[in-house]
Amino acid sequence: MCAENLQSSDSIRGAGPLRHARRAVFDQPLALEKGGRLEQVEVVYETYGHLNAAADNAVWICHALSGDSHVARHDEGDDSGWWDLARFVGPGCPIDTDRYYVICPNILGGCRGTTGPGSINPATGKPYGPAFPTITIGDMIEVNRRLMHHLGIDKLLAVIGGSMGGHQVLAWAARYGDEMAGVIPLASSARLSSQALAFDVVARNAILRDPNFFGGEYYDKIAGPNVGLAIARMIGHITYLSREAMQEKFEGDRLAPRDVAIEFEKQFSVGTYLGYQGAKFVERFDANSYIALSMAMDLFDLGATSERLAEVFQSNNARWLVVSFSSDWLFSPSESRQLVEALIKAQRPVSYCNVASSCGHDAFLLDNEVGVYGELVRGFLADLSGDAQPEEPSDASDAWGISHTNIFSPSRPQRLDYSLIASLIEPGASVLDLGCGSGGLLTQLRRGGHKVLHGLEIDEQAIIACVRRGLSVMHADLNNGLRSFGEGQFDCVVLSQTLQAIKDVEQVVADMLRVGRRCVVSFPNFGYRKLREMLYYDGRAPRSEGLLRYTWYNTPNIRFLTLDDFEVFCQEKGITVHRRLALDTEQAKEITVDPNRNADLAIFVLSR
Amino acid sequence: MCAENLQSSDSIRGAGPLRHARRAVFDQPLALEKGGRLEQVEVVYETYGHLNAAADNAVWICHALSGDSHVARHDEGDDSGWWDLARFVGPGCPIDTDRYYVICPNILGGCRGTTGPGSINPATGKPYGPAFPTITIGDMIEVNRRLMHHLGIDKLLAVIGGSMGGHQVLAWAARYGDEMAGVIPLASSARLSSQALAFDVVARNAILRDPNFFGGEYYDKIAGPNVGLAIARMIGHITYLSREAMQEKFEGDRLAPRDVAIEFEKQFSVGTYLGYQGAKFVERFDANSYIALSMAMDLFDLGATSERLAEVFQSNNARWLVVSFSSDWLFSPSESRQLVEALIKAQRPVSYCNVASSCGHDAFLLDNEVGVYGELVRGFLADLSGDAQPEEPSDASDAWGISHTNIFSPSRPQRLDYSLIASLIEPGASVLDLGCGSGGLLTQLRRGGHKVLHGLEIDEQAIIACVRRGLSVMHADLNNGLRSFGEGQFDCVVLSQTLQAIKDVEQVVADMLRVGRRCVVSFPNFGYRKLREMLYYDGRAPRSEGLLRYTWYNTPNIRFLTLDDFEVFCQEKGITVHRRLALDTEQAKEITVDPNRNADLAIFVLSR
Repeated sequence: MCAENLQSSDSIRGAGPLRHARRAVFDQPLALEKGGRLEQVEVVYETYGHLNAAADNAVWICHALSGDSHVARHDEGDDSGWWDLARFVGPGCPIDTDRYYVICPNILGGCRGTTGPGSINPATGKPYGPAFPTITIGDMIEVNRRLMHHLGIDKLLAVIGGSMGGHQVLAWAARYGDEMAGVIPLASSARLSSQALAFDVVARNAILRDPNFFGGEYYDKIAGPNVGLAIARMIGHITYLSREAMQEKFEGDRLAPRDVAIEFEKQFSVGTYLGYQGAKFVERFDANSYIALSMAMDLFDLGATSERLAEVFQSNNARWLVVSFSSDWLFSPSESRQLVEALIKAQRPVSYCNVASSCGHDAFLLDNEVGVYGELVRGFLADLSGDAQPEEPSDASDAWGISHTNIFSPSRPQRLDYSLIASLIEPGASVLDLGCGSGGLLTQLRRGGHKVLHGLEIDEQAIIACVRRGLSVMHADLNNGLRSFGEGQFDCVVLSQTLQAIKDVEQVVADMLRVGRRCVVSFPNFGYRKLREMLYYDGRAPRSEGLLRYTWYNTPNIRFLTLDDFEVFCQEKGITVHRRLALDTEQAKEITVDPNRNADLAIFVLSR
Repeated sequence: MCAENLQSSDSIRGAGPLRHARRAVFDQPLALEKGGRLEQVEVVYETYGHLNAAADNAVWICHALSGDSHVARHDEGDDSGWWDLARFVGPGCPIDTDRYYVICPNILGGCRGTTGPGSINPATGKPYGPAFPTITIGDMIEVNRRLMHHLGIDKLLAVIGGSMGGHQVLAWAARYGDEMAGVIPLASSARLSSQALAFDVVARNAILRDPNFFGGEYYDKIAGPNVGLAIARMIGHITYLSREAMQEKFEGDRLAPRDVAIEFEKQFSVGTYLGYQGAKFVERFDANSYIALSMAMDLFDLGATSERLAEVFQSNNARWLVVSFSSDWLFSPSESRQLVEALIKAQRPVSYCNVASSCGHDAFLLDNEVGVYGELVRGFLADLSGDAQPEEPSDASDAWGISHTNIFSPSRPQRLDYSLIASLIEPGASVLDLGCGSGGLLTQLRRGGHKVLHGLEIDEQAIIACVRRGLSVMHADLNNGLRSFGEGQFDCVVLSQTLQAIKDVEQVVADMLRVGRRCVVSFPNFGYRKLREMLYYDGRAPRSEGLLRYTWYNTPNIRFLTLDDFEVFCQEKGITVHRRLALDTEQAKEITVDPNRNADLAIFVLSR
């Protein structure tokens, strides 16, 4: 077992120097998940920053199918790394190498130095080629763990990776849930969709059926299966971009392809681009590696349902940050959402954001949306490592844009109903807060000793604020966000000041009552005396300074209900009302006489 | 020039008998769009039904890339045709062969008898192979027209086709706009998206770079470029299905592939399926044809903008029915919508429906949604041919589910405001009706002599009703449907009884005022005395029998505005109010005294 600097790329199959890479050789045989074993495993890896004395500041980065250990430049003279476009790893970056010790190994089965099909088989003195055994994502994790221990680390601060890197993150978290404090899969999934699998199958078949593949025994031939590998890469490239991104990229010069030296059809600019990407890829990647890695990805399968995934992650003790990208159709947001649902089912602390992006799957590598996903990762790591700034974010960016929850007062600093709502929830109860904003109520509940707390929120910035506060929040639109939660999954579900902004009221209320054993609903009472008078005497839609500061045409309040209306609704739907509070929030007092006329805020405690 | 029955498929390259096909040989040379010419052209085609005496009942079907002339079975003992799954063509079917004379030729460049790369080149006595010239969709149309004239037809009732069949439809309509009464492109576009083009390029490169391709000279070889062609077909197949459809099809037996005889990887069920589709395709399709046809499709380009397309279709005198499918990502709904926008710009009568479907691009071949797209085509053809049943559909399925437009009365048979609105529109003005329902107002305007009339509607069944009535209606959500219309494109835009149901009021009103030189807006007045009293005295959200028959939680009415509110809105936005009508619809009289209190309906005529 040894580690050394690699000064040249000579010993590494594939192109480009990994000047700062080091190598570790593990002589203990590695038994593989699908049978067979590797007698010896070498790992080539890079590190950034410094491991602290407690050895608890290590962030492990898992690279994607065609990535490598060179995630970022080590100094100004260094080549760019694959995450440098987003300025994601480095001093002051979201993964801040001034704070964290960053490790990124080349993966098992690849072609950048870590043992793979192109490596010399010690038993024969020749490259493994087709004799390289079938490997899995789990096998990659076993190799990672050897390196982790070799580096003197027992527990990582976080494991992060996108795409197939996310698969490694998930496999690690599923198998060894105590080996990390944080888990961050980006643009990933618990298994490939059938469509993604289909693209892989076609790509692999293009290589396997290339006559220059020679069953994988091409290392001593003049040419490898270059056409097949290029075709595979071209297919991949299409799936990494969104429709919109491709349209934008190639519409301008659709019929004017650049003149590049490729042996592929050059009729259309998009064709030249793909042909060039394919041809370039052949220079730096090994076809046997492509097959080994894409097969590992295709075989990766933690489960098809969120119920199954909940079992898988039951014994994971980390906190989670799951990120997807809205235009990613290869690893679609719904797949990340399924992961998150499973984690919530398993009562794991998890935050999720579906970052709005037009960049497709590649978004996690680009700088376009790094302002969102970078800040999420930065805030998550800071909170994990106890470095979070003490801050009390305002609730200015609550869901639906409703920041002022008193009908009349714009300047009330605290939401009056929070304390009341908190007092209505049983001590220690698990709580789901629908439209949690930047987490005001949840923070208050946490202070009060509640352990299992989740929020649902639609606004990206509010989610970032929640993540910084160490809260669990799931990016969702209430109107279709609750279907995935299980029956009685929370002791209490809260819908504060949002009922009047919901489109599908019946569905959301039915979902709440299904998911929560108790539900707390607060809403402004449009039967309040002053509001009635506005319409009656002035003949104008009621309007005020606070919650009602909008006009009829731009208000997020689209449901106009009185306290009595809601009472009747509960009767008609057979909903049990356990408690009803009516408040005059201007006077900050409870109303008992004719509340439908005298109260401006109603709070109901309900169950089915 | 001759026509004969083909009793066997011996003379046709490709598999399967075309027993009912006939052949026409045209000896006049065909000059090709991209240069070169074909000295002789043969066309193999099938017909169904009978041409009537006036020769005006012919419906021309253009098949897609891998289709052929056998669109439907000719009798019970016959093989199924490619549209038979949807029961689309035949007696009593949407394309009713009891009424219409149906023609479907094999296309130029294909491999089912019509002249293509596998046909014998009369100059050499050998197959054309790589000597087959580059053909275009336009060239296919020229061949079609020869056949049309050969069959004694000058003008078609309609031309219909899906996918590349739609390209032919569009090319024909663009070049010879007087040769058809109706144009029906399904799941098509004016040009391929960059993504679709990219898939074609990769697929074609897989063929071109197959070592068995021999530059196209493989007809005398033992094997053709079968691997390349199969890879091409596999890629195609993925793009024909939606993500959802693939997931549904292959999730059940993901790891249990059927045991079929293919030489492709069989690890996953989706892989077996694709491999099998690829292998089967090789048996019936010619690689040179695949290249010729996919290149023709890629070169097809009527224009990138709706402005350009409007010019292209300026001289087309037909009526149009454009259909897309919501989950089609190969020919996405936005591409059909662009076509429709161009046709509206060119003041062509056009209806459009984006049929809700989970079946992807293939939806137009399947029976899943034929209840919608079949009925659209049936109604369109019936109206075109004057066979439409005289009917006055009710307005029960108006946009937003608002059928009763009087606040209080559920049983008023006619919309009171229609006649009033009609009276406010200048004679002969072009009109866009937003939320037109099944076309009540538009029908009334047509009776009044208005020529250029369009509707926007969100409900599929209402669109079918409009199409049966011969009205032009575009499937759209008002909240984002108007951006594509040009400045001052209509003399008048009408928004009747829908303002209160709109989410983005400012945007929709701004769009209306931009698109229409005059706008007529009618809406229920929530300042009406009786409604004020309901809230004031009863403390309940106003509710009634008609327009207000809903409750607070399920009403489509999400904007509560009074007549005075709208007046102030117009002042604030600098909107010119030309006229204001206030009505008591119960008494059916105009209100002049304190209308904000005494009228239940307001009608405004506006402009910027």
